[in-house]
Amino acid sequence: MGAPNISRRDFLMKVGQAGGFSAAFLTMQALGLMPQAEAMRPIEAAPETGKGVTVAILGGGIAGLVAAYEMKALGYKCMVLEARHRPGGRNWSVRGGDTVEFLDGAQQKCTWERGHYQNFGPARLPSVHKNMLGYCRKLGVALEVEVNTSRSSYLENDEANGGKPAVQREVINDTRGHVSELLGKCIRQGALDQDLSGEDRDRMLSFLRQYGPLDSTGAYVGSSRAGYVTLPGAGDQEGRIAKPVDMHTLLDENFWDGILFEEVFDMQATMFQPVGGMDRIPYAFAHALGKTVHYEAVVTEIRRTAKGVRIGYTQGGRTKALEADYCFCALPMTMLKKISNDFSAPYKQVIEDCTYAPAYKIAWESRRFWEQDYNIYGGLESVNTGCSPVWFPSGGMFTERGVLVSGYAMDDWGEFASMTMEQKFAESRKTIERLHPGHGRELEKPMYVSWRQIAFNEGSWVATYGPDEPTRGWGDDAHRVNPGYETLIQPDGPIYFIGDHVSQIVAWQEGAAVSALRAVQMLSDRVRARQSS
Amino acid sequence: MGAPNISRRDFLMKVGQAGGFSAAFLTMQALGLMPQAEAMRPIEAAPETGKGVTVAILGGGIAGLVAAYEMKALGYKCMVLEARHRPGGRNWSVRGGDTVEFLDGAQQKCTWERGHYQNFGPARLPSVHKNMLGYCRKLGVALEVEVNTSRSSYLENDEANGGKPAVQREVINDTRGHVSELLGKCIRQGALDQDLSGEDRDRMLSFLRQYGPLDSTGAYVGSSRAGYVTLPGAGDQEGRIAKPVDMHTLLDENFWDGILFEEVFDMQATMFQPVGGMDRIPYAFAHALGKTVHYEAVVTEIRRTAKGVRIGYTQGGRTKALEADYCFCALPMTMLKKISNDFSAPYKQVIEDCTYAPAYKIAWESRRFWEQDYNIYGGLESVNTGCSPVWFPSGGMFTERGVLVSGYAMDDWGEFASMTMEQKFAESRKTIERLHPGHGRELEKPMYVSWRQIAFNEGSWVATYGPDEPTRGWGDDAHRVNPGYETLIQPDGPIYFIGDHVSQIVAWQEGAAVSALRAVQMLSDRVRARQSS
Repeated sequence: MGAPNISRRDFLMKVGQAGGFSAAFLTMQALGLMPQAEAMRPIEAAPETGKGVTVAILGGGIAGLVAAYEMKALGYKCMVLEARHRPGGRNWSVRGGDTVEFLDGAQQKCTWERGHYQNFGPARLPSVHKNMLGYCRKLGVALEVEVNTSRSSYLENDEANGGKPAVQREVINDTRGHVSELLGKCIRQGALDQDLSGEDRDRMLSFLRQYGPLDSTGAYVGSSRAGYVTLPGAGDQEGRIAKPVDMHTLLDENFWDGILFEEVFDMQATMFQPVGGMDRIPYAFAHALGKTVHYEAVVTEIRRTAKGVRIGYTQGGRTKALEADYCFCALPMTMLKKISNDFSAPYKQVIEDCTYAPAYKIAWESRRFWEQDYNIYGGLESVNTGCSPVWFPSGGMFTERGVLVSGYAMDDWGEFASMTMEQKFAESRKTIERLHPGHGRELEKPMYVSWRQIAFNEGSWVATYGPDEPTRGWGDDAHRVNPGYETLIQPDGPIYFIGDHVSQIVAWQEGAAVSALRAVQMLSDRVRARQSS
Repeated sequence: MGAPNISRRDFLMKVGQAGGFSAAFLTMQALGLMPQAEAMRPIEAAPETGKGVTVAILGGGIAGLVAAYEMKALGYKCMVLEARHRPGGRNWSVRGGDTVEFLDGAQQKCTWERGHYQNFGPARLPSVHKNMLGYCRKLGVALEVEVNTSRSSYLENDEANGGKPAVQREVINDTRGHVSELLGKCIRQGALDQDLSGEDRDRMLSFLRQYGPLDSTGAYVGSSRAGYVTLPGAGDQEGRIAKPVDMHTLLDENFWDGILFEEVFDMQATMFQPVGGMDRIPYAFAHALGKTVHYEAVVTEIRRTAKGVRIGYTQGGRTKALEADYCFCALPMTMLKKISNDFSAPYKQVIEDCTYAPAYKIAWESRRFWEQDYNIYGGLESVNTGCSPVWFPSGGMFTERGVLVSGYAMDDWGEFASMTMEQKFAESRKTIERLHPGHGRELEKPMYVSWRQIAFNEGSWVATYGPDEPTRGWGDDAHRVNPGYETLIQPDGPIYFIGDHVSQIVAWQEGAAVSALRAVQMLSDRVRARQSS
């Protein structure tokens, strides 16, 4: 049997000496000795790397909290300055008793029942976001499945099919059926004889028969996948499948975004959410960090000094200053535009040029008519005009009442932009009425968060890094770079910018986390280089 | 404003008098006064309908329990005879401490850690199965999402692509991409000029650009939907999308069943499972029914009497008899073949002719390598040869260890049928090794349930109702009728047959429930007719 354990340990130690922590780590992973998810993105730095090094962290959102958490573990002395009375930044779960204040003075008091909440910022954790899942695991944040897709949910377009909503299972499966039928027809007509070998044509045809599914003549005549008019039941209650919606109507309806949403990389099953609200994550970080996080500390200036940085801030009506060797700046660029600073010219330029998106969400408390009357549990619905999408809660399913979203988009579109809050609520209610006639009136106690109206944010996420850049989308087009971004990802002397806007995963907590991890790595490399020189 | 409440109530009362309970009920539903799911399939019968009527219910699976529960509410006097020491029948969750005994004498002792279980019978509750969800709600059975699809899970075919597994997000999205490209090409070549108007052709082309997605030349060149080679990250870590798998390989791989599984009507999101095991449902029924359920009561004969029925059974070594007005027989037909009975000739014939499917499941305890190393949370994987599918647990995610299925199919296929149990376990382990090399060795403590080897079942579910009938599948082909079935759905004098085999939802608990509800309705109509005559 030899002594595999001893020689394996020797081997690992040799790898570690030769290639540093990272090489040993990757080797251990490859040998199956360390789970990959648990480890997340490791910082390659010796313990105590940060001993004697002070860091001022501006902003207690996910980026600031991750940076503080990782740096504390490496021996850095950190202090997080957070403007609000709570951690999390845009990671904000509103509950009964909370007040939403807009910059224009509007105030909304939330009176939802105990246990109800809405995540007005991030509300999803895709399973591909390993770092965020890893932190939840490490910090003991309980997760539950976030249902991002329900085949029973609806889609609606006022201008097609008389505004009659369609069920997603029907749209998705009838579309595939028609596409398969048309392609099969072309292949049988010889249209692809140049492109496919005879063998591939035959297999393509059998594939399409199953993919559609198509009948023996190659026609799509409907499928139980698209749903039943009469469900199969007991006795002689035979299932009768629905006649397929014709392709012309499907094209008219233009539900393409709706049916492909679940295929966006970051939106694919399996997805999660913390039980009880997304803010369970920042609160868990804050608990782990203890007195490192200082609340109601509003940064007023960011200065460079001979030694490093001096951060001016106010707290409890008093003006204070924090001196540190380095600064991790996680403040939104909307705020940096207004804070007096010593950034170098290129950084000032990016900050001046950048724009932020004005995302909003409107949420209501209601009887769970979607579950009780429609068998819809979680998932999203959309309409082609007006507030969209509708997003049903994945928490508290099967209870009597819950909180749903009707409208999650940019609040500068068309007439919506100039509406009063009451008119916006009416518009949001109208969406439910379109999709589920009669149920608009069941909605109560609306809450509206427009991120450009929220102090210390004034925007939801970065839209552009420069004057000439088109608006950044998410999904297939999310991850693009530009010169402004290239500047931001490098430290400005002792100052490191962090946040989802310093990552290629904009508008996701994972982006904030990886930006922080990268900055901690860069700083640790710098500190080590300085120590050894 | 008028007096809508009064006139509405009057209206409903008139409807009720004219059309019976059902008409009033449907009207109230249409007016939005009663939630549909809560009500499930209501029995149309006055309270106390069953007063003075006795019913012997044979079998304490879902059908027997639902029948007893509903009849008790209507005043019937019921007694459930259940052969085992537990309720549920095939609804069976095996845990540490349990023993699985085969008819051939093989014994397996389960030694899984506390909290671990496997549902060897039903393990899913689709949201379209309103009755089962309704009972869970009524009986307070806590449900959690059963993840039936994960885009991160794998598919494998030994004979294609060198046996290299493919990730589902890749197969699903690359397939759609190629199909879209080919159809677009045909349309641009004019292959569908006869079938589509010019306008529809143009819209079809823009649809395909999004559906694929296709580039501006109409080619499918990959998509982030299919996944990344390098994930988008912090700083300059740009996401690099994977090169698409070519259509030829996709056809070779033959993953069609795997990628379409999530579209089978009963398999579509959102799906559920009881927290802690599917048997939480029968135990909740049993708790509500109290002394109505008699355990270890093995039926030995079913006789007709002048008054109704006499059921002979043994319990605790003693021979007993139960006289009743009616009998609800939920025993599997495999058992009825061997129980002495007074059924009429056509019923004896169906019972003699029917065959049952031999489904099995093999489950293992393991470190959750699928979560920790692959970011796979729930969902299924499949291989084209050997034990398949793999089914990851939806309960206890993020804990250290769990129980997964490797092999859930018929155990009469090929060589598998003649293997020893140890060989079957080796075969099951091989599937994990194919999909996740190196992890087959992490599997421990296998448990194997082959339903034809389980006393009081001797089969998983009805396969055929007659000698000439082909094997029944599930999914698109599940719901067919035949003469044997037509016989079974009618009462044989005082005897009503119930169970999923008396429904068009075979192999689902919902089938058992609706068959029971229908029989209770039929009996109540008969009792009322007798009372009023």
